[in-house]
Amino acid sequence: MVANDPGTKARAGLLETAHGKIETPIFMPVGTAGTVKAVHQRELINDIKAQIILGNTYHLYLRPGLDLIKKAGGLHKFNGWDRPILTDSGGYQVYSLADARKIKEEGVKFQSHIDGSKHLFTPESVMDIQRIIGADIVMAFDECTPFPCEYEYAKNSMNMTHRWLKRCCDHFDATLPEYDYEQNLFPIVQGSTYKDLRTESAETIASFERSGNAIGGLSVGEPAEDMYEMTDLVCNILPKEKPRYLMGVGTPENILECIALGVDMFDCVMPTRNGRNGMLFTTEGIINIRNERWKDDLSCIDSGLENEISTFYSKAYLRHLIISKEMLGAQITSIHNLAFYLWLVKKAREKITDGTFDPWKRAMVEKVRRRL
Amino acid sequence: MVANDPGTKARAGLLETAHGKIETPIFMPVGTAGTVKAVHQRELINDIKAQIILGNTYHLYLRPGLDLIKKAGGLHKFNGWDRPILTDSGGYQVYSLADARKIKEEGVKFQSHIDGSKHLFTPESVMDIQRIIGADIVMAFDECTPFPCEYEYAKNSMNMTHRWLKRCCDHFDATLPEYDYEQNLFPIVQGSTYKDLRTESAETIASFERSGNAIGGLSVGEPAEDMYEMTDLVCNILPKEKPRYLMGVGTPENILECIALGVDMFDCVMPTRNGRNGMLFTTEGIINIRNERWKDDLSCIDSGLENEISTFYSKAYLRHLIISKEMLGAQITSIHNLAFYLWLVKKAREKITDGTFDPWKRAMVEKVRRRL
Repeated sequence: MVANDPGTKARAGLLETAHGKIETPIFMPVGTAGTVKAVHQRELINDIKAQIILGNTYHLYLRPGLDLIKKAGGLHKFNGWDRPILTDSGGYQVYSLADARKIKEEGVKFQSHIDGSKHLFTPESVMDIQRIIGADIVMAFDECTPFPCEYEYAKNSMNMTHRWLKRCCDHFDATLPEYDYEQNLFPIVQGSTYKDLRTESAETIASFERSGNAIGGLSVGEPAEDMYEMTDLVCNILPKEKPRYLMGVGTPENILECIALGVDMFDCVMPTRNGRNGMLFTTEGIINIRNERWKDDLSCIDSGLENEISTFYSKAYLRHLIISKEMLGAQITSIHNLAFYLWLVKKAREKITDGTFDPWKRAMVEKVRRRL
Repeated sequence: MVANDPGTKARAGLLETAHGKIETPIFMPVGTAGTVKAVHQRELINDIKAQIILGNTYHLYLRPGLDLIKKAGGLHKFNGWDRPILTDSGGYQVYSLADARKIKEEGVKFQSHIDGSKHLFTPESVMDIQRIIGADIVMAFDECTPFPCEYEYAKNSMNMTHRWLKRCCDHFDATLPEYDYEQNLFPIVQGSTYKDLRTESAETIASFERSGNAIGGLSVGEPAEDMYEMTDLVCNILPKEKPRYLMGVGTPENILECIALGVDMFDCVMPTRNGRNGMLFTTEGIINIRNERWKDDLSCIDSGLENEISTFYSKAYLRHLIISKEMLGAQITSIHNLAFYLWLVKKAREKITDGTFDPWKRAMVEKVRRRL
């Protein structure tokens, strides 16, 4: 870690990967199928200042498929993004997207949501797939429990996730990278909203001593207080010197609160998905650009940001595009929202380094959660 | 005119407008509702090298509406495109898009395709609307006849278009620009595929002595030979010293052939619309990127072009995006196809200036029409 905030548990860190260093806390734009929706790769670099993006094992495995990714020399070569990539293991998608799925100790049998074809993911095969995709950070295969979740189910699921983790690690450590660079494997804490399970899971996950650790199974519908409580509890157990990744979180407010609890890495589809629908996260608050209020507001989208997109187009023009279902509308909102998220974590890092994160965060949370 | 090709009737020209000079022959990307679909304004400049874009009176009038455009200070200010704009008069859209329409001598009553609201376009109102939009080149209000079209209908329609043109010119000349720059009014030749009508219409249109002239009612389903025959006939009548704009044309082959007949300006939705569907126009021919053939072709989209998009992404990646219905696919194909069209007319201009257009065109037509 580079710096620790005196008033909270927030940290500023530096994570090294084969494709470059990542300054934490960081937000990772989601590029499910090898593309961050509606955003060019050069825009991720120039406008958004992304340092790392996500890919998804389930989606990439089904389409374009491993043969092509391998032929290209990995996902970085295939999509032209030569900075760090993290791949989600596919566990979450298998449960939420696949048409039919059957969970066994061996792994998960499922049918593709695209063509109904049948597949089997095991901890071992998911490691092999992520070797071929070539992500800098590979996630363990886990079961992401829904909310609410019965205690017994959560406990049994957690124990299976732990057994799967052992198999993931054994297989990962017994295999070589597909390409000429090292990859990292992050295990995932589960345990739903049960303190004893989360404690047990965090301790188990920490005992594997991987280079970073993740917290899964949150932001699945539980109250924010539960998410914060579980995150706090788990962060207190996971080793201080390694990055902590809170999967699938969240709103700008969630991100600020969880940085304060000691989280270093975030991902979420919210900035792009909600953006496509006309919701803007700005330095002054949340805007629903469809509202009549913005109809003839010719001021730029967000003068608090420095990127060309947020300062070039007006709110009224953007509203026209979104209302007219013009693709450019989704392109602009996607770039803007991601640029805002990356601005937010960069500012957080500066404040942590300054030792002024706590008061800044309190003021900023009030701003980013208000609806304009 | 700057240069005339010795082997054909092709010309290289320079068209001056309040928002800059346009080097002809030129292709104008279509920005129907104030946006070229899926393309950022800066991409029009940096990647595509667009010199002028189109807007559409019918669409802009209905949405975002004149109040907002006027408040913004015109379309250039509203969408941030500060180079020349040409607006189609809305005649074509009233006939093809409006839910119900009634053509009378006064004008056309129609119902919005968006909300069914009732409106009246007259030659005078369409001039007023285009004053408010602030296009550098304003088109006369005409009736675009379909193909095939009965002789009597075509003749009556043409005569009405001529009477409407008189009203357009009178009203345009009696009014001042809404903003602090001059606008140009181009009349439109009609007459379907009838030589005598086209001759009469071209002579009538020429007699109005506006700063440029357009040819409408072609590329509406007639055989290419008819389009070329009518274009040739009309170009021979329209004054040499003024730009000739062939509306709604066409394929790269059509454009090359019509440049050879003396056309200077083109517009068409084909590069963007077909692009969104996976059809690529390249320096080597036409590609349907959905074809299995491109599945694992990791070469760039078109090494014959110099823009970053056509040379950065691979065919296999683009195919994956289009097959997966990812927005980035449509963004890439739109930029690529438009960059190709602009490259094509720029090359044509160079060859005309060199005096080598004819042989180059013959070779290029063979290339651009073949399917790879």
